[in-house]
Amino acid sequence: MALSFPAVTAAIWQAGETTAGNDNLYLWIALATGVLGLVAAFFFARSVLGSDAGTPEMRRISDAIRQGAEAFMKRQYSTIAMIAIVLAVVLYIGYRLSPFTAPYANKVVISFLIGATCSALSGQTGMWVSIRANIRTAAAARTSLGKALQLALHGGAVTGLVVVGLSLLGVGLLFLSFGGLSHPQQTPYELVGFGFGASLVALFAQLGGGIYTKAADVGADLVGKVEAGIPEDDPRNPAVIADLVGDNVGDCAGRGADIFESTAAENVGAMILGAALYPVFGLKGILFPLIVQAINLVASVVGVSIVHSGETEDPMHALNRGYYVTSLLALAGFAAAIYFMLGARWWLLGSGICGIVTSFLFVRITEYYTETRFRPVQNIAKASLTGPATNIIQGLAVGMETPALPVVVISAALLTSYYFGVRGLADVTTVSTYAKGIYGTAIATMGMLSSAAYILAMDTFGPITDNAGGIIEMSDQPHEVREKTDKLDAAGNTTKALTKGYAIGSASLAAFLLFSAYLATIHDIVHQRVAAAGGVLPDSWSFSNVNLASVPVFVGALLGAMLTYLFSSMAIKAVGRAAQMVVQDVREQFRDNPGIMEGTSQPDYGRCVRIVTTAALKEMVLPGVLAVSMPLVVGVIFRHFGAEFNPGALAETPMINGKSINLSGAEAVAALLMVGTISGILLAMLMNNGGGAWDNAKKYIETGVYGGKRSEAHKAAVVGDTVGDPFKDTAGPSLHVLIKLLATVTLVLAPLFL
Amino acid sequence: MALSFPAVTAAIWQAGETTAGNDNLYLWIALATGVLGLVAAFFFARSVLGSDAGTPEMRRISDAIRQGAEAFMKRQYSTIAMIAIVLAVVLYIGYRLSPFTAPYANKVVISFLIGATCSALSGQTGMWVSIRANIRTAAAARTSLGKALQLALHGGAVTGLVVVGLSLLGVGLLFLSFGGLSHPQQTPYELVGFGFGASLVALFAQLGGGIYTKAADVGADLVGKVEAGIPEDDPRNPAVIADLVGDNVGDCAGRGADIFESTAAENVGAMILGAALYPVFGLKGILFPLIVQAINLVASVVGVSIVHSGETEDPMHALNRGYYVTSLLALAGFAAAIYFMLGARWWLLGSGICGIVTSFLFVRITEYYTETRFRPVQNIAKASLTGPATNIIQGLAVGMETPALPVVVISAALLTSYYFGVRGLADVTTVSTYAKGIYGTAIATMGMLSSAAYILAMDTFGPITDNAGGIIEMSDQPHEVREKTDKLDAAGNTTKALTKGYAIGSASLAAFLLFSAYLATIHDIVHQRVAAAGGVLPDSWSFSNVNLASVPVFVGALLGAMLTYLFSSMAIKAVGRAAQMVVQDVREQFRDNPGIMEGTSQPDYGRCVRIVTTAALKEMVLPGVLAVSMPLVVGVIFRHFGAEFNPGALAETPMINGKSINLSGAEAVAALLMVGTISGILLAMLMNNGGGAWDNAKKYIETGVYGGKRSEAHKAAVVGDTVGDPFKDTAGPSLHVLIKLLATVTLVLAPLFL
Repeated sequence: MALSFPAVTAAIWQAGETTAGNDNLYLWIALATGVLGLVAAFFFARSVLGSDAGTPEMRRISDAIRQGAEAFMKRQYSTIAMIAIVLAVVLYIGYRLSPFTAPYANKVVISFLIGATCSALSGQTGMWVSIRANIRTAAAARTSLGKALQLALHGGAVTGLVVVGLSLLGVGLLFLSFGGLSHPQQTPYELVGFGFGASLVALFAQLGGGIYTKAADVGADLVGKVEAGIPEDDPRNPAVIADLVGDNVGDCAGRGADIFESTAAENVGAMILGAALYPVFGLKGILFPLIVQAINLVASVVGVSIVHSGETEDPMHALNRGYYVTSLLALAGFAAAIYFMLGARWWLLGSGICGIVTSFLFVRITEYYTETRFRPVQNIAKASLTGPATNIIQGLAVGMETPALPVVVISAALLTSYYFGVRGLADVTTVSTYAKGIYGTAIATMGMLSSAAYILAMDTFGPITDNAGGIIEMSDQPHEVREKTDKLDAAGNTTKALTKGYAIGSASLAAFLLFSAYLATIHDIVHQRVAAAGGVLPDSWSFSNVNLASVPVFVGALLGAMLTYLFSSMAIKAVGRAAQMVVQDVREQFRDNPGIMEGTSQPDYGRCVRIVTTAALKEMVLPGVLAVSMPLVVGVIFRHFGAEFNPGALAETPMINGKSINLSGAEAVAALLMVGTISGILLAMLMNNGGGAWDNAKKYIETGVYGGKRSEAHKAAVVGDTVGDPFKDTAGPSLHVLIKLLATVTLVLAPLFL
Repeated sequence: MALSFPAVTAAIWQAGETTAGNDNLYLWIALATGVLGLVAAFFFARSVLGSDAGTPEMRRISDAIRQGAEAFMKRQYSTIAMIAIVLAVVLYIGYRLSPFTAPYANKVVISFLIGATCSALSGQTGMWVSIRANIRTAAAARTSLGKALQLALHGGAVTGLVVVGLSLLGVGLLFLSFGGLSHPQQTPYELVGFGFGASLVALFAQLGGGIYTKAADVGADLVGKVEAGIPEDDPRNPAVIADLVGDNVGDCAGRGADIFESTAAENVGAMILGAALYPVFGLKGILFPLIVQAINLVASVVGVSIVHSGETEDPMHALNRGYYVTSLLALAGFAAAIYFMLGARWWLLGSGICGIVTSFLFVRITEYYTETRFRPVQNIAKASLTGPATNIIQGLAVGMETPALPVVVISAALLTSYYFGVRGLADVTTVSTYAKGIYGTAIATMGMLSSAAYILAMDTFGPITDNAGGIIEMSDQPHEVREKTDKLDAAGNTTKALTKGYAIGSASLAAFLLFSAYLATIHDIVHQRVAAAGGVLPDSWSFSNVNLASVPVFVGALLGAMLTYLFSSMAIKAVGRAAQMVVQDVREQFRDNPGIMEGTSQPDYGRCVRIVTTAALKEMVLPGVLAVSMPLVVGVIFRHFGAEFNPGALAETPMINGKSINLSGAEAVAALLMVGTISGILLAMLMNNGGGAWDNAKKYIETGVYGGKRSEAHKAAVVGDTVGDPFKDTAGPSLHVLIKLLATVTLVLAPLFL
């Protein structure tokens, strides 16, 4: 696979030699690399599927997991498809209602549906491979740790490459077919539907999967460990298969769709900001984000290919080696792209490095707060000595402390990359200082996402090894095989935690980018409408000057923050309700069939799987619909009733035919977006890191500290771990997606707020 | 006391008859009523102190509480005084550094010191009476429930009247001595130091008291109930007196200082906004908030005076009767004030009613989420059946849900009162629509605070009855006396919970008012400086149009939200650390003196009190300093380095001698203030209501549901209750104060950000 790298380099090199008129070539390079990424994914998948698929006993378990996961995905995507179609109709009607937006109705709806489809495909494909890679990893672990590691990572790489490849192809092909080569400044605005479609599917995939995985987990634990007193992953527990299915649908499919919409939304947002620099870079500034994704693909393929591990080496070392190679290649590619596309303005490379450093620091901060060798986790473990209450208090205090450092890092990254952007374009006089700086922050975001495919491969590695361990456990393999899968599982837990840090870091940086894109979009729409009406817009007018003191803005801000709390509350309660249904079913199975506990008859795994499936799908609808409808309702209400609430701004508001445009709706939504995003980022950090810290405080005690397993301290730590579960695996990751959904839905609906 | 009411009415009436030139009279009325309020407080205090002070055994306990509380207060106020003096010096130097601000340096520092002193006095006086009212309430309970209720409420009324009276006198006298009668439009801006001084003392009082009360409570419970197995308030527990002291220093002194700064900050903020309406109402618009506070005093004195209760009546009925009378009188007074001072513009009365309705709805919503008869608390109790983990998960989910309805109510109140403001002043052409609407929202805030003195009396009623119950318990009184104090204690718990809902409601509404005042202040300063330099400011320029897309604004917003999380985390951890010190001391006492547990020798209560005192004072410094320094650092950094980060706004920024003013610092702080306030409001609601719900879920189970006391469900509920303690009594109330401190510190520092 690594072969494609020199070919692409050569092509880029050649492109740099051509004149500006040939800038189109970059689009073709990006598209070609996207196809190559999918081809590489195909080869990785083939190599995984060609491996030994284990004993019939192992296959029986794996098949049960696969069937459960596929049944869930099928029903989940049917539900999502219905919601998406309803939304497509609403969008179409909304756009058709106004003469300003009617010409764009088709493009928006088409890109929305394509974005949704690609997002669904990303989630599906990733999971399709993962639920086949798990058994093969388990089988390989019987002979070689190194081989098992490679299989799990290759399985993960399929997800990573498909996600980034589809995102690149989707955006690139839409740009091409919407006439991006003839009017490149306008086209990025027409792609916003793609990001919205992607986010919508991601939101429901992550919510549904997150509720499923924790409902099964908590339900299985409550009734198995606590009531029946049987260990985790015990085949007598009727919920055990549902638990393993949950790892796939929650972690693989959810995270795949999440990263898909991250790259899609970031691409579209960066292209919109790139359009502002058209006078400087022409088409190249707009295509730059796509080329960065192409570099990402190539670098990640190389990184995954070089990962080899000995039998005794810590798997994390091998994985980190691959990560460093990927990062260095991505950096080199970034530098080449800046040389050829952005006129060798090296300050802009500085912006890119800001993004890479930010992702590094985020991962380190996450480590500090969630790993057993540092003080936060140790303090939680110590607090467990005085019971569950002090464990919980300490865990929540740690969780609330966690946003502090990341916020400082993000602030520094934004300021620095902005400054580098301004410096890098200091000689340019045709665009505003502001547009230069904002492009700098966009480049930082691209830098952060320039190794996304490898990161995603590492992330998906987690549930594959987790499942492999479960299969080995349930099929009674010898002790030394267990040891190998335990090693892999530990590495998988680490990668899962670290990639969560990466995900929230990229979400934070992308949040500013998308927020800027929203403001730019509103600004552009106002310009267009005023021009269409033959009106005049004062030079100094800029939508980004929002009247902070206006009541609609304050109300929008309040509602945005409130949305993140209500959404989290709903997600957490959904887990609780669904888990209760699991508990009831398992209790019934134990009662109706006493042979289960004696080990003489098999429980009905499928019944539990069906129950969790139904419950999770039912529970995901309300919070999802709330997230989508809140900005729409706020924007439309204030558009109609907001004029008299915003008179301060009206004085300098652009006029059409002597009538001023009412900006209240757009302003209220801007505040909702900004404050909702900030509140969401902080809440997600609290939940992810708090949950991770609780989890590892329990593991720390299990190593023998404070009395070890079965001590009072351990019991207290188990309480903390259980509380952290829906935090870190349902509400937290769903908030990541919510943040980006808010950004994309407001981009799409922007024309309807005016 | 009620006698003062007709006299004041007559005076107001007479004032209405005079010509506009005699508007000064309103200031004299306000000041006179302030003095009357203090006189009324004196009489209430005298009547309380003249009552029977119980048996020597009771006095011994009460004396121990009193000494502990006084020792803590003395040391606490020494620490706060040092911090205040340092800050006064910093403020003075900061103001002297620039020729623009130097002329105001004296006024700001003087008003700051006076505000701080009055705030400290309010806290001190309230507590002075409370720790004397507790024993007299206990003594009265031996003969009459009605008499005990009256004593406790009169004790609380002293706090309420002193707080509101001092706030009114402080603001009024400063206004007078700063020349408010000769240049009334300018003077309100010079009073901002008063609000800041008040908030500073309130922050440390609430933080220190909050940490003290919960460290003693949690520590006493952990080592007494859990380890030694002795009941609550058992005299053998060496931490029991510290626990009772905590009720006073946390609830009485902290809440007193909190409400003092609420009314002070709201008065100053409303006067600043009233200055914008000077062309319409003249001095009367500026003095209106003071007159509303005067009405508040009179109505509350009447309300408190009419509370009488029979021996069998539920104490809450009597308290509510007083509340309704107070509210009706306040409403009537409000209407009269609008008739005489605001030209009988009845739409403005509508704005005031908005505020009153908002406070009513906030109290009802708080009831819904925290009382046992509604579903949220019942669901938490039910979740306790499956152990502490599900209890905690459900409690947190309820906590996160709680902001939803209040946010909707606040949004509606802001929009409606703004609209009424615009309607009420529709015929006025000399001020902007925006100023009219904002004045409407200010009137709503005044409406909400128009019964503050009575609310505070009800609030302080809580710790007095709590203490009275403790004294009765520890002095072995007969069972029927216990029953009476239990009734009072239950009523006290209810009033404490409801007034917390009221406090956060008023904080939310006041937040918008103070935020608007901050923007108005910056606007005013820019105008002044441009005028001083002979520059020209475009008509359309308004500071309220902040560039939302600028990086400093986004960074300020991120930091503001982060501050609320970090502050909460610090407060919660402080409780944990201080509680551990209590646990260690009690363990030592039990070990060194086995006679304690046998009941043959007395524990050293004073040692525990001293330990908690030292720990709480040490722990309050860091979060307090963080809160004060964050806006200062952000504002000053971006003032110096922000110019190139905000070029979008510079284009239309006012110029002085051809050099534009750098607004980055002021803008970043505006975002910090707005987002910090919103995040703080939501977090405080989560913590207050979550904590209250956990508390009552435990009490609900204790009534016999789900197995009652000593069942597994009850154990789980106790865990939730313990987690909720530092939430609802330390971090939550401290966040209320933080929000207002942010508002006042930014008002004071505003000139330094430019």
